[in-house]
Amino acid sequence: MPKKLIPDIVIGRLPLYYRVLQRMLAKGQKVTSSKELSEYLEISAAQIRKDLSQFGEFGKQGTGYHTEYLSNQLRKILQLDRIWDMAVVGAGDVGSALAHYQGFHERGFKVAMIFDNDPQKIGMKLGDFVVKDTGSMVDEIKKAGIKIAMIAVPASEAQDVTDTLVEAGIKAILNYAPIHIITPPDVRLQCIDPVVFLQRMTYYI
Amino acid sequence: MPKKLIPDIVIGRLPLYYRVLQRMLAKGQKVTSSKELSEYLEISAAQIRKDLSQFGEFGKQGTGYHTEYLSNQLRKILQLDRIWDMAVVGAGDVGSALAHYQGFHERGFKVAMIFDNDPQKIGMKLGDFVVKDTGSMVDEIKKAGIKIAMIAVPASEAQDVTDTLVEAGIKAILNYAPIHIITPPDVRLQCIDPVVFLQRMTYYI
Repeated sequence: MPKKLIPDIVIGRLPLYYRVLQRMLAKGQKVTSSKELSEYLEISAAQIRKDLSQFGEFGKQGTGYHTEYLSNQLRKILQLDRIWDMAVVGAGDVGSALAHYQGFHERGFKVAMIFDNDPQKIGMKLGDFVVKDTGSMVDEIKKAGIKIAMIAVPASEAQDVTDTLVEAGIKAILNYAPIHIITPPDVRLQCIDPVVFLQRMTYYI
Repeated sequence: MPKKLIPDIVIGRLPLYYRVLQRMLAKGQKVTSSKELSEYLEISAAQIRKDLSQFGEFGKQGTGYHTEYLSNQLRKILQLDRIWDMAVVGAGDVGSALAHYQGFHERGFKVAMIFDNDPQKIGMKLGDFVVKDTGSMVDEIKKAGIKIAMIAVPASEAQDVTDTLVEAGIKAILNYAPIHIITPPDVRLQCIDPVVFLQRMTYYI
């Protein structure tokens, strides 16, 4: 599909639509509507229709969307019709939790390797993984053709790790380190710092 | 401070400014500028000046911001001049990781209790905690006056848990369950589903 310029904020909502549709499919629900999706997501029905119409006509006025068809289309658009291997950097508490997280595989992702620079941790068994040396990271990631990485190292090391990952050909980074990291324009970045999410709410309490 | 209507997107950026300022303070840096903050955060200097000016005059044209003063002001605005106790619901992999996470305390938060409904887990030691029965959740949270909770239960249980937390007086929820939950208008909600963050990036690879 040729990529027209779709705002990133629209792309950001597609996984939410896809997630609801997967739950509907699991319950055997064959048809839905922008109104019903709206109730599940607290996004307006008009917004949902507008977002989806960016990618073509998925539903008909009055009859709604076919759950499976729409789900398949979103899967293609988001490139989830495959399993994405991922590298985890940092074998501390957060990295371990990511290596063990059961929720990835059924939704299109798989942790393939985990790295650390601590001699105490290199070679250690972590679930199904043996922790590898960050020194071999560029080679290992290149050889495996991995494009997605999750960073779970201390803030002070996060930018160096990022630069190495970029050198290794990584194109998407999920950053758990509590610092903003800089990536080149062709490398996507999302950040998960739970404290930032919490601090965003304490203002209102 | 009387709360004028500040857009939530502005509030959402304040913790990022605060995080950078804390790092500057740790290095002993006394002064900064919107230009320098901009380089660390990839947010435009004009946007940073505009955001901060919503709360008063923190800096002077040409001399920049005093790091410590600005940091103190943001701490007050975000109500981080205290430690917020939090309840974790769900003692699985994610809940355990949250209970062990070292990054909360130095940044204004503390896990105070953890709940599960699984008889196998209730009474179990988890780091410094003994897992409590969700059956006692409303009483325990009310008694302790806790206002913030993190949900780390399966998607199918998340809404019920949310409703119970709201009944217990919780005013801010960080939701790790992979489903959108509905809260009343006076209860803030932030969601961390790593797969949604990942799927938002695979579109571009």
